[in-house]
Amino acid sequence: MNPSMTVAEIARLLGAKISGNADTVIRGVAKIEDAGPADITFIANARYVKHLETTQAGAVLIAPGSWVTNRTLIEVNDPYADFVRLLTLFHPKAIWMRKGIHPTAVVEADAVVDQSAAIGAFCYIGPRTTVGSDTVLYPHVIVAADVVIGCGCEIHSGVTLREGTRLGNRVVIQDGAVIGSDGFGFAATECGYEKIPQSGIVIIEDDVEIGANTTIDRATMGRTVIGKGTKLDNLIQIGHNVSIGSHTVIAAQSGVSGSSKIGDQCRIGGQVGIVGHLQIGDRVMIGAQSGVSSDVPNGDIVSGSPARAHGLWKRIEVALTRLPDLLRRVRDLESAVFKAQTKDKADS
Amino acid sequence: MNPSMTVAEIARLLGAKISGNADTVIRGVAKIEDAGPADITFIANARYVKHLETTQAGAVLIAPGSWVTNRTLIEVNDPYADFVRLLTLFHPKAIWMRKGIHPTAVVEADAVVDQSAAIGAFCYIGPRTTVGSDTVLYPHVIVAADVVIGCGCEIHSGVTLREGTRLGNRVVIQDGAVIGSDGFGFAATECGYEKIPQSGIVIIEDDVEIGANTTIDRATMGRTVIGKGTKLDNLIQIGHNVSIGSHTVIAAQSGVSGSSKIGDQCRIGGQVGIVGHLQIGDRVMIGAQSGVSSDVPNGDIVSGSPARAHGLWKRIEVALTRLPDLLRRVRDLESAVFKAQTKDKADS
Amino acid sequence: MNPSMTVAEIARLLGAKISGNADTVIRGVAKIEDAGPADITFIANARYVKHLETTQAGAVLIAPGSWVTNRTLIEVNDPYADFVRLLTLFHPKAIWMRKGIHPTAVVEADAVVDQSAAIGAFCYIGPRTTVGSDTVLYPHVIVAADVVIGCGCEIHSGVTLREGTRLGNRVVIQDGAVIGSDGFGFAATECGYEKIPQSGIVIIEDDVEIGANTTIDRATMGRTVIGKGTKLDNLIQIGHNVSIGSHTVIAAQSGVSGSSKIGDQCRIGGQVGIVGHLQIGDRVMIGAQSGVSSDVPNGDIVSGSPARAHGLWKRIEVALTRLPDLLRRVRDLESAVFKAQTKDKADS
Repeated sequence: MNPSMTVAEIARLLGAKISGNADTVIRGVAKIEDAGPADITFIANARYVKHLETTQAGAVLIAPGSWVTNRTLIEVNDPYADFVRLLTLFHPKAIWMRKGIHPTAVVEADAVVDQSAAIGAFCYIGPRTTVGSDTVLYPHVIVAADVVIGCGCEIHSGVTLREGTRLGNRVVIQDGAVIGSDGFGFAATECGYEKIPQSGIVIIEDDVEIGANTTIDRATMGRTVIGKGTKLDNLIQIGHNVSIGSHTVIAAQSGVSGSSKIGDQCRIGGQVGIVGHLQIGDRVMIGAQSGVSSDVPNGDIVSGSPARAHGLWKRIEVALTRLPDLLRRVRDLESAVFKAQTKDKADS
Repeated sequence: MNPSMTVAEIARLLGAKISGNADTVIRGVAKIEDAGPADITFIANARYVKHLETTQAGAVLIAPGSWVTNRTLIEVNDPYADFVRLLTLFHPKAIWMRKGIHPTAVVEADAVVDQSAAIGAFCYIGPRTTVGSDTVLYPHVIVAADVVIGCGCEIHSGVTLREGTRLGNRVVIQDGAVIGSDGFGFAATECGYEKIPQSGIVIIEDDVEIGANTTIDRATMGRTVIGKGTKLDNLIQIGHNVSIGSHTVIAAQSGVSGSSKIGDQCRIGGQVGIVGHLQIGDRVMIGAQSGVSSDVPNGDIVSGSPARAHGLWKRIEVALTRLPDLLRRVRDLESAVFKAQTKDKADS
Repeated sequence: MNPSMTVAEIARLLGAKISGNADTVIRGVAKIEDAGPADITFIANARYVKHLETTQAGAVLIAPGSWVTNRTLIEVNDPYADFVRLLTLFHPKAIWMRKGIHPTAVVEADAVVDQSAAIGAFCYIGPRTTVGSDTVLYPHVIVAADVVIGCGCEIHSGVTLREGTRLGNRVVIQDGAVIGSDGFGFAATECGYEKIPQSGIVIIEDDVEIGANTTIDRATMGRTVIGKGTKLDNLIQIGHNVSIGSHTVIAAQSGVSGSSKIGDQCRIGGQVGIVGHLQIGDRVMIGAQSGVSSDVPNGDIVSGSPARAHGLWKRIEVALTRLPDLLRRVRDLESAVFKAQTKDKADS
């Protein structure tokens, strides 16, 4: 059951002024194009102001301004932030799992599962593993031996946590992610490649979220680390012994090769590749599809493959559009200069 | 058991003329290099005509022409299309699963599974889910709460359908794909990133096929939609609130960021990246590894990263090969012009 | 329990000379920054020599040289290779699974599992499948019908082996990989795309390793082949009918489209794309993020998208940095030449 609130109640909650009907009952949240008379919506971008005339929304969160409309407006300084608050309110996290251990789950005798945790159907909890309080494992989570899972975690279906993996608190892992697979380490010998034992582990700190089907390799020795509050999107590859700082965000399908270190508060686009053994500083921004092959200092912005300073990359991309024409212009210049030289010789 | 047919029977089926032995018995289909005396094969490309002399095939589908060979030929206008017909005939879809619910599967009490469906070992069917007639769930399919699966679907092993997902009819999902994982939505706050609730769903329309380990995120609000007849290859990422039209094809490892809209009958290559909030029209073609960062109108062909009109991109790529040489030529020009200017000054 | 050895015993094992304390007891291996007094470490790269002064390591494997240090050194010709030997010795492969078939596993009546194999919880072993001696299937491995798994294989959790797949001996497959999913084959018709039956199989030869969440499609007809000793990293896509030779290495997130052939002993970087129907020779090297769209002969090195000879690609990348400046220089030249021409005309 969704909650319901009047516009007046919402405005009071947000400490905001109303223009329009304070008694309208709001039962949900929606995008401005989709909102109906019982929905509240928001405008955070001038491009969407045009929708004010046609929207069916019961109320609109909007920055203060002299809007001429017959819609009910709630004026707030940061419409998107307040909208996210309402979204959380109207859509409380929907955990459909029941507490306790599903009768089909296998929990090895020497594993310890907190009694407030929920363990779904067909979960496997390996030897010497511990699962903290209020943690939810959806059906078909596979936990190998010697794993530590903190409190308040949400591990979705089909996730594998390989031996020795350690998760902090409030970690969220989307479906199908693999944490702790063997690093890609082989020594070339005369009879082919010999596997280098991968005996390290993976550490996932508090408040990390990891996307669907993302893979994080264990360290060869020591630890692969994903720092506190960092968010990884889907289908990302993190190589062995990589270390990522705190509050860094990486978009889908990017890959980080073995032993590279990434700092805090970085923002990395989708389909980026980072080669091994690099140092990427704090607050670095990397454009989508970049290929990073050298260290990046704190605060730098890089783009392109191979990655360059963002400004230079942009100038190169603009110049490239004119490259075919440039070839023609140089040819013209060459014939003009040649003609001048020939004439010069003829003259002298 | 594969069926067997004589060359005469096959020719009659295809309404085609035979040159050679009409009585040869055909028991299978194969590529021309691999075909044995009981196989039928095809030539759809002039490059393969040379194999006519050496093939062991019992019969060859080929376009009408004055072929001199001692092989048995069946002359048809579209050899590949007719070969696909025979392939379907000789290799009827091999469902090795039995109808009914495997004794190890868990079906929640308020879920409804049609009695003609097949539910494999260790499948989990969540609360309030419905599974339509003649649908097959291979072992280890995970279906969360409130999911609707239509008729005649094939869901392969390890697939997760998250809460609220809705599948049309005849949808095929290859192994390990994740449908309905949370979108990558976080609001930056002073204490790090706060998760934006992802309360929307994913809609997969009729006749869609989705590749192995592909991930499709649920909408933040509303719906992520994959339109009728669209085909997605393996390891593709589809972000939250993306909408893809009908009969569009996307090759492996491409990614579409949040809220972008792709039209009907597009053809998108492998490892393409499409940034968020774009409008890609109908019948658009996008070259492999392109990075699309602006809208693309109906019918356009784009390539490169960043993506440009395909013709311009090709001219740039050709010109790039000559760029190192161009640098040298400009240096030569500069010294010639400098010399002329110096001489000029000396003369005057 | 890890083994323990004195420095003298290790030196004898490696046939090496000691400088320092031969009696130190070594209980583990570690990177030079992390090593403690009971660990042995190594220096294979001059950059790490500086750590000799500060490391806590009980002993250091190092190439012969006149090192001035109070650390205990073991002098060997190839410190990294010998370190890998010790790594294997101190970290013997940690199989935490017990032999035999877990009581929750489902093994179809006509499947044959060697009694020395280990089959984990919730594994599904399909009809007519065989599992060889000393093979380990971790929990939640899904094996469809008619699969052959050789001896000494390690198949990690969540792996799917689709119908007809054949694995050699000592094959290692990391978690979540999908072997034998349908190839991406559709014929365009007037009513949309029609699925082309994918009736071939996948062959994985001896000593192959396949990374987490990698996908390998079955052949349309015939076989997709991964040759002896080849190593594939995580999240790789291998299309239908691809053939890869022996002892080839491919890094994470690369993709190979349908029917391409790759030779022996190739080294292919991460996020590489290879289009369909190509011939890549033996000992080819392909740089990370390259896009290969034409055949590559034996021994060639290519880079870039589209891929070019590595030397040309490097020259182009260097020249690109100067492209914005080149535009300005050509503009200057044009105005100089124009001025000269104008003056010339005025003079004559």
